[in-house]
Parts: sequence; structure tokens; C-alpha cells
Amino acid sequence: MSQKELDEVVISRAILAEQNSVMMDYLDLECAVVGAGPAGLTAAAYLAEAGIKTGVIEKKLSIGGGMWGGGMMFPRIVVQEEARPILDKFDITYKEYQENYYVASSVEAVSHLTAAACDAGAEFFNVTMVEDVVIKSDGRVSGLVINWTAVEMAHLHIDPLTLRTKYTIDATGHDATVAHQVKNKGGDLPIAGEGFMWADRAEANIFGHTKEVFPGLIVAGMAANAVAGETRMGPIFGGMLLSGRRAAEIVKNNLQ
Amino acid sequence: MSQKELDEVVISRAILAEQNSVMMDYLDLECAVVGAGPAGLTAAAYLAEAGIKTGVIEKKLSIGGGMWGGGMMFPRIVVQEEARPILDKFDITYKEYQENYYVASSVEAVSHLTAAACDAGAEFFNVTMVEDVVIKSDGRVSGLVINWTAVEMAHLHIDPLTLRTKYTIDATGHDATVAHQVKNKGGDLPIAGEGFMWADRAEANIFGHTKEVFPGLIVAGMAANAVAGETRMGPIFGGMLLSGRRAAEIVKNNLQ
Amino acid sequence: MSQKELDEVVISRAILAEQNSVMMDYLDLECAVVGAGPAGLTAAAYLAEAGIKTGVIEKKLSIGGGMWGGGMMFPRIVVQEEARPILDKFDITYKEYQENYYVASSVEAVSHLTAAACDAGAEFFNVTMVEDVVIKSDGRVSGLVINWTAVEMAHLHIDPLTLRTKYTIDATGHDATVAHQVKNKGGDLPIAGEGFMWADRAEANIFGHTKEVFPGLIVAGMAANAVAGETRMGPIFGGMLLSGRRAAEIVKNNLQ
Amino acid sequence: MSQKELDEVVISRAILAEQNSVMMDYLDLECAVVGAGPAGLTAAAYLAEAGIKTGVIEKKLSIGGGMWGGGMMFPRIVVQEEARPILDKFDITYKEYQENYYVASSVEAVSHLTAAACDAGAEFFNVTMVEDVVIKSDGRVSGLVINWTAVEMAHLHIDPLTLRTKYTIDATGHDATVAHQVKNKGGDLPIAGEGFMWADRAEANIFGHTKEVFPGLIVAGMAANAVAGETRMGPIFGGMLLSGRRAAEIVKNNLQ
Amino acid sequence: MSQKELDEVVISRAILAEQNSVMMDYLDLECAVVGAGPAGLTAAAYLAEAGIKTGVIEKKLSIGGGMWGGGMMFPRIVVQEEARPILDKFDITYKEYQENYYVASSVEAVSHLTAAACDAGAEFFNVTMVEDVVIKSDGRVSGLVINWTAVEMAHLHIDPLTLRTKYTIDATGHDATVAHQVKNKGGDLPIAGEGFMWADRAEANIFGHTKEVFPGLIVAGMAANAVAGETRMGPIFGGMLLSGRRAAEIVKNNLQ
Amino acid sequence: MSQKELDEVVISRAILAEQNSVMMDYLDLECAVVGAGPAGLTAAAYLAEAGIKTGVIEKKLSIGGGMWGGGMMFPRIVVQEEARPILDKFDITYKEYQENYYVASSVEAVSHLTAAACDAGAEFFNVTMVEDVVIKSDGRVSGLVINWTAVEMAHLHIDPLTLRTKYTIDATGHDATVAHQVKNKGGDLPIAGEGFMWADRAEANIFGHTKEVFPGLIVAGMAANAVAGETRMGPIFGGMLLSGRRAAEIVKNNLQ
Amino acid sequence: MSQKELDEVVISRAILAEQNSVMMDYLDLECAVVGAGPAGLTAAAYLAEAGIKTGVIEKKLSIGGGMWGGGMMFPRIVVQEEARPILDKFDITYKEYQENYYVASSVEAVSHLTAAACDAGAEFFNVTMVEDVVIKSDGRVSGLVINWTAVEMAHLHIDPLTLRTKYTIDATGHDATVAHQVKNKGGDLPIAGEGFMWADRAEANIFGHTKEVFPGLIVAGMAANAVAGETRMGPIFGGMLLSGRRAAEIVKNNLQ
Amino acid sequence: MSQKELDEVVISRAILAEQNSVMMDYLDLECAVVGAGPAGLTAAAYLAEAGIKTGVIEKKLSIGGGMWGGGMMFPRIVVQEEARPILDKFDITYKEYQENYYVASSVEAVSHLTAAACDAGAEFFNVTMVEDVVIKSDGRVSGLVINWTAVEMAHLHIDPLTLRTKYTIDATGHDATVAHQVKNKGGDLPIAGEGFMWADRAEANIFGHTKEVFPGLIVAGMAANAVAGETRMGPIFGGMLLSGRRAAEIVKNNLQ
Repeated sequence: MSQKELDEVVISRAILAEQNSVMMDYLDLECAVVGAGPAGLTAAAYLAEAGIKTGVIEKKLSIGGGMWGGGMMFPRIVVQEEARPILDKFDITYKEYQENYYVASSVEAVSHLTAAACDAGAEFFNVTMVEDVVIKSDGRVSGLVINWTAVEMAHLHIDPLTLRTKYTIDATGHDATVAHQVKNKGGDLPIAGEGFMWADRAEANIFGHTKEVFPGLIVAGMAANAVAGETRMGPIFGGMLLSGRRAAEIVKNNLQ
Repeated sequence: MSQKELDEVVISRAILAEQNSVMMDYLDLECAVVGAGPAGLTAAAYLAEAGIKTGVIEKKLSIGGGMWGGGMMFPRIVVQEEARPILDKFDITYKEYQENYYVASSVEAVSHLTAAACDAGAEFFNVTMVEDVVIKSDGRVSGLVINWTAVEMAHLHIDPLTLRTKYTIDATGHDATVAHQVKNKGGDLPIAGEGFMWADRAEANIFGHTKEVFPGLIVAGMAANAVAGETRMGPIFGGMLLSGRRAAEIVKNNLQ
Repeated sequence: MSQKELDEVVISRAILAEQNSVMMDYLDLECAVVGAGPAGLTAAAYLAEAGIKTGVIEKKLSIGGGMWGGGMMFPRIVVQEEARPILDKFDITYKEYQENYYVASSVEAVSHLTAAACDAGAEFFNVTMVEDVVIKSDGRVSGLVINWTAVEMAHLHIDPLTLRTKYTIDATGHDATVAHQVKNKGGDLPIAGEGFMWADRAEANIFGHTKEVFPGLIVAGMAANAVAGETRMGPIFGGMLLSGRRAAEIVKNNLQ
Repeated sequence: MSQKELDEVVISRAILAEQNSVMMDYLDLECAVVGAGPAGLTAAAYLAEAGIKTGVIEKKLSIGGGMWGGGMMFPRIVVQEEARPILDKFDITYKEYQENYYVASSVEAVSHLTAAACDAGAEFFNVTMVEDVVIKSDGRVSGLVINWTAVEMAHLHIDPLTLRTKYTIDATGHDATVAHQVKNKGGDLPIAGEGFMWADRAEANIFGHTKEVFPGLIVAGMAANAVAGETRMGPIFGGMLLSGRRAAEIVKNNLQ
Repeated sequence: MSQKELDEVVISRAILAEQNSVMMDYLDLECAVVGAGPAGLTAAAYLAEAGIKTGVIEKKLSIGGGMWGGGMMFPRIVVQEEARPILDKFDITYKEYQENYYVASSVEAVSHLTAAACDAGAEFFNVTMVEDVVIKSDGRVSGLVINWTAVEMAHLHIDPLTLRTKYTIDATGHDATVAHQVKNKGGDLPIAGEGFMWADRAEANIFGHTKEVFPGLIVAGMAANAVAGETRMGPIFGGMLLSGRRAAEIVKNNLQ
Repeated sequence: MSQKELDEVVISRAILAEQNSVMMDYLDLECAVVGAGPAGLTAAAYLAEAGIKTGVIEKKLSIGGGMWGGGMMFPRIVVQEEARPILDKFDITYKEYQENYYVASSVEAVSHLTAAACDAGAEFFNVTMVEDVVIKSDGRVSGLVINWTAVEMAHLHIDPLTLRTKYTIDATGHDATVAHQVKNKGGDLPIAGEGFMWADRAEANIFGHTKEVFPGLIVAGMAANAVAGETRMGPIFGGMLLSGRRAAEIVKNNLQ
Repeated sequence: MSQKELDEVVISRAILAEQNSVMMDYLDLECAVVGAGPAGLTAAAYLAEAGIKTGVIEKKLSIGGGMWGGGMMFPRIVVQEEARPILDKFDITYKEYQENYYVASSVEAVSHLTAAACDAGAEFFNVTMVEDVVIKSDGRVSGLVINWTAVEMAHLHIDPLTLRTKYTIDATGHDATVAHQVKNKGGDLPIAGEGFMWADRAEANIFGHTKEVFPGLIVAGMAANAVAGETRMGPIFGGMLLSGRRAAEIVKNNLQ
Repeated sequence: MSQKELDEVVISRAILAEQNSVMMDYLDLECAVVGAGPAGLTAAAYLAEAGIKTGVIEKKLSIGGGMWGGGMMFPRIVVQEEARPILDKFDITYKEYQENYYVASSVEAVSHLTAAACDAGAEFFNVTMVEDVVIKSDGRVSGLVINWTAVEMAHLHIDPLTLRTKYTIDATGHDATVAHQVKNKGGDLPIAGEGFMWADRAEANIFGHTKEVFPGLIVAGMAANAVAGETRMGPIFGGMLLSGRRAAEIVKNNLQ
């Protein structure tokens, strides 16, 4: 194998220059999606596909959230009939276990959703956490205060940076992190907390719970159910995908 | 949103039944790829594409290995000219930083490589670690001793299970985990260890170091360079992709 | 010693196939016993003996709960006159220390109780924790949300699975884990918490506190006293055994 | 439920008096079994059945060693034809998976083996670790230096106590703890370390490796294979049971 | 150096027999002192001197509490005029820094106080913690629920034992452990918590705060001030010694 | 209780002034005793009694070393006939268990030894560790490099201070810390390491092993046996006390 | 390089003597500044410059607080027009990014502020924490209770010392440590807690929030905003510097 | 206080833009100084003063290394006669303790050295660690492999970046980190390790040990002594400063 000579410093500069350019640009977003699990990835894919400038902020180093492990580390997920079109759209294969129950590989599902969001043009900021929100005199969530997750993991005390965004989708799972940040500092955003397990009800209602719960802040996926006090759903993912798509639609409509 | 009623127990059974069926089947492999970083994913994609029964074993919950973080948490990677065809094959977009230096998003790269391996038919076993190898009277690595990574993380003492494989690709990075397991218990497999950083040399030689280093065991990616005592490369990924493809070719040739 | 050849993959498949078959079946129970300490084991033994389909869920790897260590690591337990018939039933030997105080080996007691529950036909799910309960429109605890304990110990975020059960016995000790899960999410189940140490009163009243405290949920052993606000008992185990037997009777009666 | 009044201090004294009496007596043993896994429990059951004064020392709080978790947390074990009589002797039920492969519940197996050792008269010292051995001018392992495991877990510096024993069986698994203590302080006891996984060979040879490897010290179970440099076996337990029985026979013969 | 032969087992039995005899006896006390800091040691010395059967329970392995480190690790303490007689009584030497301020070595002070309590006949139970109290129908603290501290440090779940006592002195410092145990389970014992630092006031008032705050329970030293909501005192120890002596007097008077 | 007004700042200055004066003085010693367990305390008591300027350096906050816990947390120690005079000298009471075996309370023993060393005039530096030794052109251990133990426990990087000493007694137990520091940096001081348990031999030989093993460095107690490769002794303390006295004699003779 | 002979003990004594002299003196202050971040350092520099006896207490080993890391570990800070004179005063260089936004190196800023405070005559006590405050009958914060931070990090229980001060500036960042200590023990000092991010408002109002919030206690920097319930500011430091200067002015005025 | 409106996104962009520009530039250095303790800071100040493009890489968040804590947390350092000119040059004040021993504040010393290096034009990269070195066919250390320290502290696996440098000064203290990286991967660089404490000798010889020990790599400060096997020095800093100045001179001479 022959090749042109490679210089480590050029490699380093290529990375720094490209990422700096992206970060400078993406400090001003149309929509920030917080949390890169199934709902967040679906939302990001639909948003970016619609030409909306979208940044996805994920506290972990890897993208995919709680989906990698399937149920009890058996890496399979289940999706019901209604959400099958989303699997089809993202080329995720599945098997019918019995009527209305389709089983997919969790690894395949994560990678296809992530790839779709990338391909549509969403930009990812991983190892990055949202520490706080910006709320000014208009009373809207109009920015996010971000920092490296590694800074927190290392117990270092280092100031954050801030990005501006027209809309934020909280897709952080049952922690509903952004919603809690708004609530904990006095925002008028009641959070009821997730209820008992009852998958059928949870799946039926998640669509309705996906909405703007505070000016500028939409909740999606399990965060939507947690805010609404809805029941738990477990390793059934149809509602998550539908909720992600719904959140994207709300933002699209609002931006028009 | 209306839907058919969902039953949690059917969801649970769908997951258990499907994964049990996969596990029962995949305890007997043609090729086991250990480590789901760039080299391992590339190898798995080419192997599965060739119709070889391939299982990928990854100790972490997420797939992608050390690629997610780019360089110093700036999520970009660099690839040189020679490996550009592999980016093209897997639909990974890139920008030219200067001649011979192409920059891609690390998140996009991971997700496309993973999706490609899934689509080609490779099966993934995540949260799973290789504890040991099977070597019998024929002196070959003919199986892998596996366990849940969570068992080790929780400091529990629980017996492993075992899978049979015709070939194993050690794509575990500079730890070269499987190679070390062979060496530590007395196998004739000298491991020189990774050298100083010298990306140009490392990239030039990795192709040659990708080979069967012990009967049944091929090394790929940084594991290949670590076994050979080759220099380090840093966040340049062309050699990794080419090494993964080469490892797949070696296994394909051997299986014919 | 000569023998037929043993194949590691057949061994692995035997384990997977058998346990998968058990798990598929036991996702639908007549009675789930949570916690495999003295009360839970006694309940399970009596339930299974009566032909009731019983699963025991224990968060630790080992079965036996807090009984192994006797008092202050001296592995002896004390049982009073009234519970002597249960020791006799389970072939647990004892010595009279003085009238009404019988001393047994804690190791022997645990192993005989566990063996009895196994022999009667109860099925054990160890290293498994109950994360949550299923409560639907009928307002009953009608299922349990379970996960590997190792997943929690390893700080991984992985979805649970769910089992269905007609009755649940909370035998988790003074934590009264299941009762607290019901309470914490808004179920009408007041929990007074364990009182001061007063063995005599605790033993006298535990029988009465063993009851259905929420539709579908029976409390037994120290969990019964913790819910009722009863006093502590220490290393005297007669009340625990009697409470376990009583809980089994309640379930048997309800199932008829 | 009425009862005679119970006094906490009498309960405490009953425990202290009984255990003190046992400890005073069992500081002088005919055989000490270190490690209460399958090999140690089997050995203890056969020894005690033969009327030999036997103490079992287990570092964990619970008895059973690595058997509780089956393979990869699926709580099933496999036993081959030759060891079936031992299962039968201890009333452990099993199913035939295919010829020569019998599957049992790991929970049932542990509890029956423990109960059998108790019933035969072995005495258990749990939460207790062997820190060192006694070797005097006769060059034999003639005693064990013991301490609470909790002392080590709490990082406290507290002196141990010592017991005398005619024979010691090291059944501590692949750590071969006692054998290593002898070796590390200069005893002539070469330890080859466990080899690669090869269940068939490991099972065939364990019987021969079960022997007195140093004056007064017999190795059994995985400790026997670890000392001999034999291969690994995984979740097949026939050899373990046969090795435990063999170790008991060696001690019995030597004591006559 | 010649000597008679020493037998490890006799040494071990001597320790076990002697301590068992002491423990059996001291499960029934006239006064339990919890916490072996300056106040507790002083109380114990005066109590035992008066012929009262006294047990001192200390959660740490070493005796002395917070006195070893003086102020900011400078191992000196200060005592004022009024408490000088107690220093003299216990043969603790001191230097006059200026009028009313006497400086002593913290190491000397701890060792003399401990020696005095031992010599007077108090019995020490170190590495032992009070988990709970016994309160029966008479509404008095009439016993203590004790366990090895090592059990808690090792995160083991093991039942405690119980001792009976006519009086208990809580000398556990500002944690006021026993008082909180009474309060937390519903005892009518308001605890105001320690105030700001104001040594002069704290020293002036501690004598008055040393009293029976719940039937059977006397508080002494910083625990007395913590219960009363008194101010902090820092490394001035006169009030601690006087409070310890006062607590002993109260118990003596009550027992007559 | 009335009293003169107390000022916190005067209290603080009294402590600082007194300890600074002691530290300034004790940076130049005749004998440094490292480790305040039984051997070190005995040595310090005899040295100071002889008018030798003695500093005791103890890494823990409390004084007493491994003696507090007796054997297996039963706080009793055993002493044989020959060392009885030392118990008598330090007013430590004991009971005869059988001929030649005298049992004492570990708490009483520690406090009396510490008090004796204080009373004789030894100065204690607790929470202080020896990081290194001073060896100059004369090849002697002529100083110790000391630091707060808290600095190491807090993982801080802070420079030490240094004291000068004519002789150093390493009484740090089987770690033989100072001896290892000399050895690890190239000093000619072979350390054989402690042997198996054999109390009788260990006690017989410790006297002879107590000697100057490197210019300026005497070993005492378990450190003496560890350097010499002698056997272990367990909770028999006669040899420790005799070794401490012997070390003091060696220093006294050398200083004359 | 030739030199006069250096003696380690003289070096040690020089350090001890000098620091003891400083500590003895600085136990009585005119102003204590707690927290050595940008606001505290600025305050200390102005105070000392005015001839006020000032001690700075910093819990970390290093001085500089949260300023070292700039924003997200990019070591740059931003200062606006109004605070430019303070940069100029302390010789901190900067670049204009755009009108009203000046960028400086965080390392340069910290070192110049620290040097300025030193040069003006402030004395630093690092690795030192404030545990509590002194409040006597006059109801003022008139002293601070201090201890080594290493003592807390090492989980040791050691008494503090106390210093007297006429004024205290709480410059501990959003923790507002001293203010919380006053509040938590009952002082009338309401703390609203920091609001959402809104740099413009935070910077505009910090000057007004810098004031005496409790007799003797002034808050500065983020502590001022935290007490007032003001919004967050992020890595803009003008307000911090202005607040520090303002706090110094308040103290100066009060002391006249 | 009135001000122009501040925008969080402009603040963030100012930081990103400025630091990116610095990093892009400083990936190509004339001299890299690794470790920002006294020797490294002195070297950096002299190098930058001479117009050499100098980057300082420090693994901690704060600058100053081991100097902050003085000796045993007493924040004072000692400097001898010969190094007094360097104190004078950097405006660090001191007091004469006795002839040839000058005491300075450690906080003042650190801040002045850091400020001097900044003012001279050195650029600081804190929270940054050197993982490895670049050595190519010319056999020189010609680059450094760097990463965020937070990445390692958070146990994340993320690739580093690389910088080019003509010379590297290893001023990492006795760890001599860069020298060890060269040695551990096979570079011909023997490291003798630090000797016993002997300040006088250490200070006399450090000047001579400050030299180019491997092509491109100069050692300074304690790293120089550690490589040479020289003795320790403790909290005397003259040699450190002189060594730092000497290292700068060597690099200056080589670059001409």
C-alpha cells in the first residue's frame, strides 16, 4: 500500500478547523434537540429533512440513548402497527412476532435512525450536556447553557458556553432534564412524573402529550409522558417514534 | 391516535423469543468479530456482504468504539485519499480540508458503518465481553468464552457461555484483547506493543500487519499495529477501514 | 475417569434453551414472591406445594436474604415455640437454649427453606430486581417490571421486561420495596415504617399485619411490619416463617 | 396469635452461647474445606457423612460460590452422565437436553448440596476468610489463619485467629487461594494456572488433578485444575462434583 | 530468649472464651455509654468508679473520638480553669498559655481518660454501632440494638443483637445519634441542632443541657448542646469533661 | 456553672503556639519511633524514661496500631509468661486463661502503653506519615521526610518537611515501611518478608531480629520479623512488647 | 554551580516559623475574603491596597476559582467595556472581538489578579475551608471557623480553629457558602438562588446586589447574584471584577 | 451601573474564535514546556522573553504544580542565595530567615512566575495532558500527543490530537512523564529515579542534570534529578528556578 505522506499536525488542524466552523455556526439554531434516543433522533431526522437548522445535544459519548440494550440486555425492540411506516421510512427491518407486534434489532434501529438524522443534515454535539436554559424578558426558552459532560464527570468547575435556539425539544427520557431545569428555577411548568407501567395507555396517549409545555420548549418521547404524569411503556418503541415525528411537526408549524 | 391493545407480556415474549432464537443460532459462527470500532465494523460489513455468518461482539452497550469522540472530543475524523472509496461505499460524506485530507463527522461515520454491517446481515452482541478463548488439540482458536459485561462491572462471579467460530478477528484496538488472552495463557503469539506516534508510517504499514497471527485469529485495526509493534496513528481512520476490509478478505479466502 | 465427549456449544445451548423456555412460561404467574428471605421462601414453599404457579424474584445473586449472617455475623437464628412446627416440616434441626427459645444454624435454615421451595415447584429468578409495577384500569397490581440487578449495579440504562401475575407477595424485608413503588407513584398505600425494637410485640402482631394491603399485593415478613408501623424483631425468626405461611394461605384462598 | 413473652437479651445470648460453643470446638478440625462452591460442598457432605469433623470456611456471606448464576446469569447448570449419580444422591432433579447433557436449576443444586452438607454434620463459617496458613517444623499445612471478611471489606487492620486442622481442602475455584498462600510464602507448590477453555479435557482430567499437592493440602474443583495447569470447563459441573467426592475420599483414606 | 511453647489454638480460645464471657454478661447493663470521646470517657470513668456496671459502645475501632486531632491536626487541646480539677484527677498534664487557658496534649488526654475508664472497670465494645433502640410499653429507652460497624462498612445485610440497659448516655458528639434514632421513629424528643460557634456561651450552658431528655436517655457533651440548640465550642474541652461528669452523676442519682 | 469569658481566638492561638513550639523543637531528635503500635509504644516509653528525646510518628489519627481490635474484632489480647513483667510495669491487668496464657483487654493495653509513653515524655505526631528518609554521605538514616497523612488521603501534591534524628526505630508492623523505603531506593537492606503463621517460633526469635539493620535504623515488632523472614505470630503480644523494650535498649546503648 | 551548604531542618524551621507567625497574626482580621475567584481576588487587591488587614481563605490548593477553565475548557474569558479599567489596572492584556467584547487569557487574568492581591499585602490561606461562622450576642458575623480542606477530603473528624474578623466577604461563587451557613443555622438571611442564564441582566444588576446582607457579611460576585435570585452570567467577567471592587469599597467605608 | 447589551452567543463565539485561532497556531511550536510548576514556568518565562514560540502544557486545571502547598500545607517556600536574583527578577518578595535561607509566600511565587510567563508571551494549555510523543525516522522527539485531562478523568476513550515542536522541556516533576513515555516505548533513555532526601546535594547538582537527555528532549527541575538518579530536595526551590532558566538557555542555544 503506497500513499501520500500524512502529517499529524494537518490532521489535527483539519479536525479543529472543521469543528470550530460548525460550532461557531451552530451556536444559533432553529431547533435544538436535547437527547439522542429514539424520539430525539426521529425528531431530528424530520426537522433536518424539512430544512430546519437542527442541533442534537447528547450527554453521552455515543448516540442512541436507552435503545441499545433492548429489554433486559436482549438487544431487540418491539414496534406496533401504527409506527411501522416510520420503520419503513428509515429502512429498519423487522419480523412479525404476532399480529401488531414487530421485532427489530436495537442496534440496527439505532444506527438507521442516527444515519437518517445525519443524512438529513442535523448536526450532533455529543459528550455535551445542557446545564441550564436561557430565559429573558420574553419568558421563552431562547437558549441553552452547555458544557462538556467530561467536565462534570471529572468534577471540575468550569464555566459553560451558551447557544441560541428558537425551539428546544426535550427528548431526554423520563428524566425530562430540560423541563426540570425550567421548573426548578421557578418556571411555570408542572411535572407530574411517570406513572406505573401500562404500555397500552402510554402508547395511546404519548401523541397528545407531545406539545409545547413552556414557551419555546416542546417535550417528546418519555419526557412527554413524564411531564404529563402518563404511564410507563417499557421496550415498545412505536410511541417514541411517533412522538418524535409529532414534535418535529409542531416545530415546523411554529417556524412557518 | 387509535391503536390495537398492546400487552406487556407479549412484548416481553417477542423480545425473549427472537433473541433466544438468534443466540441459539449464533453460538456457531463462521467468523466472530471482537470489537465494534471502525476496523471491526468494516470487516463485519464486508464479511456479511459475502454471505459469511458473522457475529460482532462488543463489550460496551453502544456500538462504535473509540470513533465517537473524534479528536479531543471534537467529533470529526480524517481520512486520506486511499480510503476514500470505502467512505463512498458506505455513503459517508466528507469535506476536503487540503489535498489528501478529508474530514467527516464521527457520528455520521459510526452510524453508517454500523448500519452497513446490520444491512449486510451481521449480528451484534453488545454488552458482551470475551473472557477467554477455546483452544483444543488442533491448536486453533476455535471458540470464544463470552459473558455479559454487566456481570464484570457489577463484580459478580458468574460462569460464562461459549460459542464456536471458524475464524476470529481481533478488532479490539490497542488493547488487542483476544491476542493477549492467547498470549497470556501460553499461546505462541508475541505482542510487541504500540510504538510512538507516527501517523504516516502507521497508516502505510497497517495493511501488512493485518493477518492471521495465530491459527484461527486475525488481527485488524489498531490491534494489528499493537501486535506488530507498529507506530500510533491518532484520529486518521483510513488505515483502520482498509485494515478491516483486508481482514474480511483474509477470512473469505480462508473459508473458500 | 473416561467419559463421552463434551461440547461447549451444546452445554451453552442446553442452558439457553431450558432457561428461555422457563422464562417464556413464567412471564405469566399466579403468584410472584418478591424477595427470597425467610418469609418469601416459606410462602413460596407453601404456595408451590398447593400447586400454584409461583415465581420467586430475588435481587441478589444468592438466595436467603438477611438470614445467612444470623446475629452480628454469628450464624445462628432463634425460633420460638409456635413456629417450631415449621422447622419440623422443613427438617431444620435446632437446640433448646431455654424454654421457648430454639437455636438453629442459619446456613441449614436457609438451605432447607430454599430446597423446600424448589422441591415444591417454585421457580427462582435471581440477580433480578423489580423496578416498578403494572397497574391498569382495574387498579390492581397485575404485573411486575423486572430487570437484571447487574444492569443497575453497572449503572447502565437498559429497558426492563414485564411479567403478569395474579398476586404479588412483597417479602423484601423492611425496605418493603414493592409497597413503596406503589406508594411513591400515587397508589393509596400508607406505609408507617418500622418502629423501635420490641421483639415480643413484633412477633405477636406480624401475623395480623400479613394481609392484602393493596389490590393484588400481599405483604409478608418484615415488609408487613414496616407497612403497619410495627416494632422491630431482630434475629428471632418464628414470626417470619409464620407470616410467610399466612401470606401463602391468603393467596390460596383468593385464587379459589 | 398468642405466644410466650420473648426477651431480646435471651435471644442474643442464645445466639452468642451456641456459636461460641461451636467456635471453641471447631478451632480443632479433622478437615477444613475452604470455599463453599460445588466441589467444596460435595466434599463436605461426603466427609461429614463419614463422621469426620469438618468445617467449611466461606469468604462470602452466602454459601454456594459461583454456581448461583448458572451461565451468563441464566440460572441453569449442565451435568454429564458420569456425575448423574451424585445428582441422584443429593435429590437434585434434572432434564435431559440431549444424550449425556442434563440440565438442572442452579438454585436447586446449591440448596440441595448445602442442605446435604449440613445434614451430614458439617459446620459452616461464612463471612470468614483464610488469610494465611500455619506451617511448622513438620512442613505440613496444620492450621488456617482466619478473619472476618467484613474486616477486610471495611479496610480495618485487625489480627486474625487460628484453627488447627489435620487436612485442608482448597476448593476456592480458579483462585486456588490456599495453594497460592502456600506458594507465595515459599512453599514448594508450583501452580501452573488455568489454561484455555476446553471443557471436555478439563472434565476428563479433573479427577486426576484432585490430590494432595502439599503435605496436608488437597486441591479440589477448579482449584485442582488451576494448580495443574489444566484447561477451563465453564458451566458444566459434573467434574466439580466428582472432584469434591474424590477429595473427600483422599482425606478419609489418609485419616484411617 | 527461651519460653514455654505457645499454641495458636489456645491463644484463639483464650480470646474467644474471655470475650464471650464478657459479652454474655454485658448484654445486661446498668448504664450504656454510646460514644467514647471526651464526654463519654469521663462519664464512663465516673460511673465505673461508683461501682455501676458500665459498657462503652464506640463505632470506631479506636477509642477517643474527635479528640485525637486537637485543632486543625495540631494535637493540642485547651481546657479552662473550671475543668482543671478533672485534668488533675486523671493525671493529664497541661501548660498555662494565659490565665484561664491551659493547653494539653490531645494524645495524652485521650490515653489517660481511656485508661481511667478501664481502670475503674468500664467495659469497651469498639467497632460496634448502635443501630436502633429498644422502647417497650413503659416508653423508656431500655435497650440498644447493636451491630459490628464493619458489617455496615462492608455493606452487608446482617441482623443485630440487643442489650438491655437501665440508662443510656448519648455521647456521640454533634450527631447525637441515639437521640436522633429516638426522634426519627416518633419519640417525643425535639432536637434543635447545634448553633453558630460561640465557645463562651457553649461552655457556660453545656452543664445545664446535660440531662435526661427522654425516659432512660441522658445526653452529654456536644450531643447535649446539639439537642438543646446550643452554640458550638471548638477545641476547648472543659465543658465536655464537666458534662461527662454531670451525666454520670445523673445516672448515679437515678440508680439509687 | 459560671466561668471566665473564653475567647475562640485565644484558644486557637494557644494551640498553634504550643504545637509550633513543639514542632520546631522536635525537628531534631535523638530517636524517632515510626508506628505507634505495641512495639513502638513500648520502645517510646522506655526511651523517654531514659531521658532520650523521642518523637513518635503515627500515620493514623489514633494511636495504638493493630492492637485495638484484638483477634477477629474480639478486643482481647494474649501475653505469655515472659512478657508479664512488662504488663505489670505498665499496670495492665490480665487474667490467666491457662498456664502461660494471660488475657488482657486490648483497649486497656493500648491506653496504658500510650499513657506510659506520654508520661515518660515522648512526643506524638499523629496523622503524619514518613514519605522518605534522609541519607547523606555518611550512609546513615539521619532524618525522616514527613507529611500529613491527610494530604495523601486527599490525593493532594504538597511538599513534605524533614526532621533530623540520630536513630530511627521502624515499628510499622509487617509493612516495615521505613525499611522498604531504604531498600526501594537502593539501600543495602534485604527484606525477606513475613513467613507462615507459627506463633511459637515467631515469639522465640523476635528478640534476636530486633536490631540495627541499616546504619541508624533499628527494626522492632512485626517489622523485625518481616525483615528477617520470620514466621507470623497472630494476637499474642509478648514478643512485641519485649521487642519494643529491646529496641529501646539498643538505642540507649548506642547513644552512650 | 557552587553554593553554601543547605540543611533540611533549617528549611523546615524557616517554613514553620514564618507561617506560624503569619497565622498567629492573621487570626485577627479586618476583613476576611472567602473564595479566591475573580471577585474575591479583586476585592482582596483593593482592600489590601487601602491598608486593610485582609486574609483570603480558599478551599482549594490553588488560587483562581472557576476562572482557570474559561468557557468549556477553552481558557479565554470575555470582559465588557465598563470593566476594562480594571483589566488595565491589573495589567491584563486583551483583544477586542467586537465592540464591547474583549477577550483575555484566563491564565493571565488569574495570575495577574492573584499577584496584585499579594503585592498589595493580602495574605492567603489555601487548602482551608470555612466550616461555620461565629455569631455572638451582637448578632454579627464576627469570626470564621476554619479547617484544612484535606481533613474533610480525607473524611477525618478533627476540630477546627477560629479567626476573628470585622467583616467577611462571601465570594464563594453560586454556592454562597458563608451565606448558606448563616441561613442554615437560623440567621435571617433569605437566599433566593441563581436564576436562568441571562448575562445582560446579571451583569447589569450584580453591582446592586453586592452589599452587606447580614451584619458583618458582604456578598460579592456570583454569591451576590445567588443570594438575590439574580440571573446567571456565564464566562463574562466584567461584573465579577466590578462586584469585587464594590465589596472592597463597602468594607472600606464601614471601617472608617 | 449602565452598560451596552451583552449577548451570550457573542461571548461564546469570542471565546471559541480566539482559542481556536491560538490552538491552530500553537500546534506548531519552537518549544513545548510540559508541566507548569516552578521549573517549567521559569523556563517558559525566559524562553518567551527571548522571542521563542513557547507553549506550556499542564495537566491540571490550575497552573503552579506542587508549589501551592509550600511544605506540609504551610504555604511558604525557601530559596537560597544563588537563586535570589531570579526572585528579584520576577518581583517575588522574601524574608531572610537566617543567612542563605530566604522565605517567600508560595502563592505570591506561583502567581508572579505565571504572570511573568504570560507577559513574556508564552501560551498556556491547561487541563491538557501529554499522552505520548512523536518520534519519526530522525529519532527525535518532534511532537507531542495531547488530550484533555478531563477525558482521562472521566474514563472516556477518545482519540488525541498532535502538535509539532522543535524542542520539548519535561518539567513534570519527579514523575518525569515525558521521559518515561520515551523510555517505556523503547527509547534509549535510562531513568535512574529519585534518590533519598539530601537537599544540599540535590540543589548542587540539578544544574548539571538539566540537559538534553534524548534528541529534542530537555529535562528540568525534579524531572532532571529523577532521570539522573539524584537525591531529593524538598521545599527548597532555588535549584528549580535555576534549572528552569538553564533549560531555557539550552533551547535558545540550540535554536540559533
